[in-house]
Amino acid sequence: MSLSKNQLKLITSLQQKKYRIKSKLFIAEGTKVVDELLNSNFELEQLFCVDDSSYKSIENRCLISDAELKKISTLKTPNNIFALFKIPSEKSIKNEGLILALDGINDPGNLGTIIRLCDWFGVDQLICSTNTVDCYNSKVVQASMGSLTRVSIVYTNLVDYLQNSNLPKYASLMDGENVYKSNLLKNAILVMGNEANGISTSILNLLSKTISIPRFGEEQTESLNVAAATAILLSEFKRST
Amino acid sequence: MSLSKNQLKLITSLQQKKYRIKSKLFIAEGTKVVDELLNSNFELEQLFCVDDSSYKSIENRCLISDAELKKISTLKTPNNIFALFKIPSEKSIKNEGLILALDGINDPGNLGTIIRLCDWFGVDQLICSTNTVDCYNSKVVQASMGSLTRVSIVYTNLVDYLQNSNLPKYASLMDGENVYKSNLLKNAILVMGNEANGISTSILNLLSKTISIPRFGEEQTESLNVAAATAILLSEFKRST
Repeated sequence: MSLSKNQLKLITSLQQKKYRIKSKLFIAEGTKVVDELLNSNFELEQLFCVDDSSYKSIENRCLISDAELKKISTLKTPNNIFALFKIPSEKSIKNEGLILALDGINDPGNLGTIIRLCDWFGVDQLICSTNTVDCYNSKVVQASMGSLTRVSIVYTNLVDYLQNSNLPKYASLMDGENVYKSNLLKNAILVMGNEANGISTSILNLLSKTISIPRFGEEQTESLNVAAATAILLSEFKRST
Repeated sequence: MSLSKNQLKLITSLQQKKYRIKSKLFIAEGTKVVDELLNSNFELEQLFCVDDSSYKSIENRCLISDAELKKISTLKTPNNIFALFKIPSEKSIKNEGLILALDGINDPGNLGTIIRLCDWFGVDQLICSTNTVDCYNSKVVQASMGSLTRVSIVYTNLVDYLQNSNLPKYASLMDGENVYKSNLLKNAILVMGNEANGISTSILNLLSKTISIPRFGEEQTESLNVAAATAILLSEFKRST
């Protein structure tokens, strides 16, 4: 059995968000990421593999050729396994512990790294503004390295969400309070802003506390990458609680 | 005046390390990065611009068309300015303060982010093993966002360098001492390893102290991205000194 025209059309369409929403499917590739998804609550739609010796127990698998894999893969170096999984239905939002909220993160690599960071630091609730890059974008799925299975991600209107939450809210800013000297609470929302423009004004107005990572270098240094800043801030919240 | 065949050949060749070494030139693009390099000790070889209205004071500039810029650019969206700068001759190594050493970092984006982190945290000496990706690779130059002008980077045999230094040496490992509880010294060398394989054995044997970032999430979480880990460790060294 090999790829049908319809399968090929469906798979190609999934590189666009609107078709992912329509079909409720997303792409995952490579042994590591696919294995983690198979061992999680995510539901497999179909597995495509060049060599299926490790996947004999999976019913909806389909053997394909190297050339076919190359055709459908989103990677530079395709890696044996290509799978379609179902996008889970939106879960309810947890309202305790440290919650990370993203306001307009654009770069898939940054979002993937941030999902891995949440996983590492035991932050299991990630809230994304609706203009944040889609976590089922194949680049995000790859960069998250399977952490997608352990972090609950909800896309929502961030203004409404923040207005309705009574948790303390911290804004990560360039000129906020020194994070090393701040009182970081265990139950809180930390908001990180867009790569170029930071946190939007409508969101900033809803945040009661501000924090910054002090700069030790020269004044000209513009800013930290948002994923690097998230790494440091999550570490600060967790080390102190 | 527009691009000659020889200029085009030279510029294209600079995407390869061996030709950068031969000609002692590297590529920088975009207003932000080029302006920072122009305002630094780096020596300009030639500036190519579509619009030179902001660069009238620069003698060795050359007006080119949009089509020519598109031809030579390494960016998806070329941005008015393209420049060749001279690779500075290797400086002597500073032997005080916090020094970051990289053992085989492969990814240009990671190295660029790490250079920005050094700049932010005032770590002005970065030592790279000879198999670390070249900091004059155009992707590194872009990702470093001008921080290249403020961080001194030396490529050297890391075994020899570490053997000859009497500073305390910290290895960033998966199973080292909890960094939050470690005694982090002001004058020290911090070694970060390769993305997939960590620190090589010959290097590890030379390091007296080990540190790790504690994991707060589930056991399955594999590891932190090396740039994210570097962010947290530099923050820990600096916050405590």
